[in-house]
Amino acid sequence: MDQAAIDRIHRSFAAQSMMATLGARIEEVGAGHVRIVAPILPGALQQQGFGHAGLTFSLGDSAAGYASLTTLPLDNEVVTAEIKVNLLAPAKGDRLIATGRVIKPGKRLCVVSSEVHAEEGDRRTLIAVLQGTMVPVPV
Amino acid sequence: MDQAAIDRIHRSFAAQSMMATLGARIEEVGAGHVRIVAPILPGALQQQGFGHAGLTFSLGDSAAGYASLTTLPLDNEVVTAEIKVNLLAPAKGDRLIATGRVIKPGKRLCVVSSEVHAEEGDRRTLIAVLQGTMVPVPV
Amino acid sequence: MDQAAIDRIHRSFAAQSMMATLGARIEEVGAGHVRIVAPILPGALQQQGFGHAGLTFSLGDSAAGYASLTTLPLDNEVVTAEIKVNLLAPAKGDRLIATGRVIKPGKRLCVVSSEVHAEEGDRRTLIAVLQGTMVPVPV
Amino acid sequence: MDQAAIDRIHRSFAAQSMMATLGARIEEVGAGHVRIVAPILPGALQQQGFGHAGLTFSLGDSAAGYASLTTLPLDNEVVTAEIKVNLLAPAKGDRLIATGRVIKPGKRLCVVSSEVHAEEGDRRTLIAVLQGTMVPVPV
Repeated sequence: MDQAAIDRIHRSFAAQSMMATLGARIEEVGAGHVRIVAPILPGALQQQGFGHAGLTFSLGDSAAGYASLTTLPLDNEVVTAEIKVNLLAPAKGDRLIATGRVIKPGKRLCVVSSEVHAEEGDRRTLIAVLQGTMVPVPV
Repeated sequence: MDQAAIDRIHRSFAAQSMMATLGARIEEVGAGHVRIVAPILPGALQQQGFGHAGLTFSLGDSAAGYASLTTLPLDNEVVTAEIKVNLLAPAKGDRLIATGRVIKPGKRLCVVSSEVHAEEGDRRTLIAVLQGTMVPVPV
Repeated sequence: MDQAAIDRIHRSFAAQSMMATLGARIEEVGAGHVRIVAPILPGALQQQGFGHAGLTFSLGDSAAGYASLTTLPLDNEVVTAEIKVNLLAPAKGDRLIATGRVIKPGKRLCVVSSEVHAEEGDRRTLIAVLQGTMVPVPV
Repeated sequence: MDQAAIDRIHRSFAAQSMMATLGARIEEVGAGHVRIVAPILPGALQQQGFGHAGLTFSLGDSAAGYASLTTLPLDNEVVTAEIKVNLLAPAKGDRLIATGRVIKPGKRLCVVSSEVHAEEGDRRTLIAVLQGTMVPVPV
C-alpha cells in the first residue's frame, strides 16, 4: 500500500469520535487487513464487569470496515450494510485486538470478517468473530 | 410484570457503564419487550458525523437482551451469544430508540429481535434491525 | 400490484428447479410480501426425521427474495447477498409456510425478513426467522 | 479421531435424506472439520440456472454441523441454532465443496464456520461463507 492510502485510513479513523471514546487506535494497516486495539475502559463495561458487546462489536466492525477500505479508491468511504457477531468468551484482560480482513472485495459490496481477541499478559483469547458486508460510498 | 422483575432490569442496566457512556436510559419495560433511548452524543460518531454503528448496535443489543431477561427467573442474567444487525439508514436526529422483543423464549436459548429508530422532531426513521440469540446465565 | 408484476414472480419461481424439487408453490403475492408453501417431502429430511434446515432456509430465502422483487421494476431479478436464519423449533407437520416481507426497499440493496411456520392440522408453530439482504440485478 | 467417531458422522449423514436428494457425500472427516461435496444437480437450480442458495446453504450448514459433531461425545447429535450465509459468487461449475470447521467447541453451544467453493475443472472459486451456532442434543 502506498502512504496516501494508509494515511486516509488513519484520517478516517481519527474522524470517528466513537473510537476515541473507546480509547481505540489503529495498530496495523495492510492490503485487505486492518488491526485495531483498545483497552477495556471503565466506561465500556456490561453488567458483569466485562467489556460490553457494543465495545467488541465496535472494534470488530471498524476493523472490518477499514480492511475493506484498503481495497477501494481513495475517493471512497464505506458504510456497514450488515454484520453479525458471535461472542465466544467474556471481554476481559488488558486490551482487545480486532483484526479485520477482506473475504471478497467489490465495488458494490465487500464481504468482510473480523476476529477479536482479548489479551491478558502473554495470553490471547479469541472472544468474537464477525462476518458482514460493507458498501463503498463515494465522498 | 411485578415490580421486582422490573427493578432487576433497571438494576442490571444501571450496572452497564457502557449505557451511561452512551447516555442511554430505559424508557419502557414490559413482558417480552424493552425500549431503550439515547441521544447521539458527540463522542459516539462515525467518520461522516452520524451515529456510529457501534452505538446503534449497543442500544439494539441491550434492548434485545433485556427483553429476553423479562422472560427469565429473577436469579438469571443473559449474555449475547450472537446477533446480527442490518443498518438501513444513517443514525441522525435528536435521539435513537431501540425496541427489543422476544421472538422465542427459552431457558437454554432465547431468540430476540430489535428495531432501532432515529427520531428527528416528529419523524421516526427505522435505521436498523437486529436478530440474535441470548443465553440465560445464573447469577 | 398489476398482473404483469404478479406474473413475473410466478414465472421466475417456476424457473427455480429447486422449488419443484422441494414441492414448493407460491400461495400469495402482494406488494412487499410473498408466501410460499411446501410439504415436508421424504427427500428433504435431516437425520432425526424432521425437515432439513436447508428446506426451511430455501423456502424462507425464496419468500424473502420474491418479496423484494415485488418492489422492483419488471426488468430486474434479485440475488441473495446474505441471509441469516434462527431456527426455533423442529420442521414437522403437514406443511411449511414461509412468509417473506420487505423491511427496507432499495435499488441497490433491499433488506428483507421471513417467518417460516410449520402447520400441523389447525396449529401453526413459528419454526424459523430469517433476516437478510437482496441485491437487484438487471436481466 | 477413532473409527467409531468417524462412523457415526457417516451414519448420521446417511440418515439425512436431503443430502441424498442433493447428491451430496462426505469427502473428509477430521477433528473439528468436515468436507462435503455435491454436484449441482438439474433439480437444485435457481431461476438463472445457477445452483440455488438453498443448495449452497444446505451443504455449508451440514459441513459446519458435522464439524461440530466431531468434537462431541458419541451419544450426541447437533442441531443448527442459527447460521448466516454471505453469498459471494454464482454456484456454477462441476461441483460444490463445503468445508466446515469449529471455531469454538462447547457442550452448550458450538460456534462454527463453513466455506463453500465451486469447482470448474482445475479452478476453485469461493462462493459462500457461513458462520453459525450448533447446539448439542443428547440422542
